Amino acid sequence: MLKIKAFCFDVFGTVVDWRNGVAREAAAFFHRHDVSDIDPHEFADIWRSFYQPAMQACRSGERPYVRLDRLHRENLDATLAHFQIDAGRFTESELADLNRAWHRLDAWPDVRTGLQHLKTKAIIAPASNGNITIMVNLARRNQLPWDAILGSEVTQAYKPSPEAYTRMAEVLDLPVDQLCMVAAHNNDLRAARACGLATAFIPRPTEHGPRQQSNLSPSEAWDFIAQDFNDLAATIES
Amino acid sequence: MLKIKAFCFDVFGTVVDWRNGVAREAAAFFHRHDVSDIDPHEFADIWRSFYQPAMQACRSGERPYVRLDRLHRENLDATLAHFQIDAGRFTESELADLNRAWHRLDAWPDVRTGLQHLKTKAIIAPASNGNITIMVNLARRNQLPWDAILGSEVTQAYKPSPEAYTRMAEVLDLPVDQLCMVAAHNNDLRAARACGLATAFIPRPTEHGPRQQSNLSPSEAWDFIAQDFNDLAATIES
Repeated sequence: MLKIKAFCFDVFGTVVDWRNGVAREAAAFFHRHDVSDIDPHEFADIWRSFYQPAMQACRSGERPYVRLDRLHRENLDATLAHFQIDAGRFTESELADLNRAWHRLDAWPDVRTGLQHLKTKAIIAPASNGNITIMVNLARRNQLPWDAILGSEVTQAYKPSPEAYTRMAEVLDLPVDQLCMVAAHNNDLRAARACGLATAFIPRPTEHGPRQQSNLSPSEAWDFIAQDFNDLAATIES
Repeated sequence: MLKIKAFCFDVFGTVVDWRNGVAREAAAFFHRHDVSDIDPHEFADIWRSFYQPAMQACRSGERPYVRLDRLHRENLDATLAHFQIDAGRFTESELADLNRAWHRLDAWPDVRTGLQHLKTKAIIAPASNGNITIMVNLARRNQLPWDAILGSEVTQAYKPSPEAYTRMAEVLDLPVDQLCMVAAHNNDLRAARACGLATAFIPRPTEHGPRQQSNLSPSEAWDFIAQDFNDLAATIES
């Protein structure tokens, strides 16, 4: 019998392809606004590069927990500045819509069927640093059958802070070792394991594009290692 | 076009038939433990009668927010005492299992198809005083296609406190008037309307059994009034 009672998933990179989705939305935005000579994938990469430092300010206590939507919006200003694009050219409503690019990302092709299968075995929930509305919109777009939306807005903590994992177990009213963190990122799993959670690694070798160097393989003997979500569902049964 | 972007649902009474479900679970428990002469529906009614006073201690600030599972467990002791049953006859594990009767309730027959239909129109989420694991287990049992689990554990407030409604709008990043509270209880809708939410009344005339006197009809001109969840879905389209 499976000891795991809940699978908790990283989302950006593990469930959805943020880089191609943000690039697609940015390209459409630039096209509408006659901005040329910007590589939309580079724009996505730079926007994402401000992600960890922004959360670190919350993790360190320098500022209280604020939703990722707000950090993304602040980081969008920094990204536009990086590309020397004057943000004053756009209305706040236009920028808010571009910020919602993170709500309009596509899941990797194995995700939906894999989650449907895993849901028959245990509770499934996102454990993302994204806020609840991002997760709701991604789930509606991709028909992801989550049992609940967990993650930073429920725990009021950003991964890899320990509270992001331990408070999730408290909310689920389960011992930590009955939760399994599923991620394409070894550092997420390392932090989850340090809190006592089980761990599952799924590689997403093109999350960062065709020349990705990081997280191509598991860095430790994680409890489960699978090729994708369908393979994970098959693996936990064997 | 529908102005409402999210339907938020009361659950105990509106979505699920708590009285017959708790009575069924209590009857099985008493049978296993050779307790006779207890009417299981009366047991359910008494257990439920401690619900509002227990939450009131949290609403008033007398104690901090604690999960409904814990209040139910405290109220179970009071209920056993009411019936002069010695709680010491049972192990804590047996009492914890009886307490999870509230996780094993059946939805009214119109709920699942009604929610499926409403989900094509707007976000759907429980706005219950129940904690997240109660809602997850009720959803899994009854295949309720919620977009997210909202409610007291996310807002850290018990209805009808205003924060239970206004924080839900904040989490959904929507103006209050784009949320619609759906309930079989006029007082829940009154509190939601006072916060600016739209309101929908669905009668559940046997929630309290065959001789129910309360909430048989709408007490005000709520924005939507429907016979059940399927009728609500049809009503908002017309």
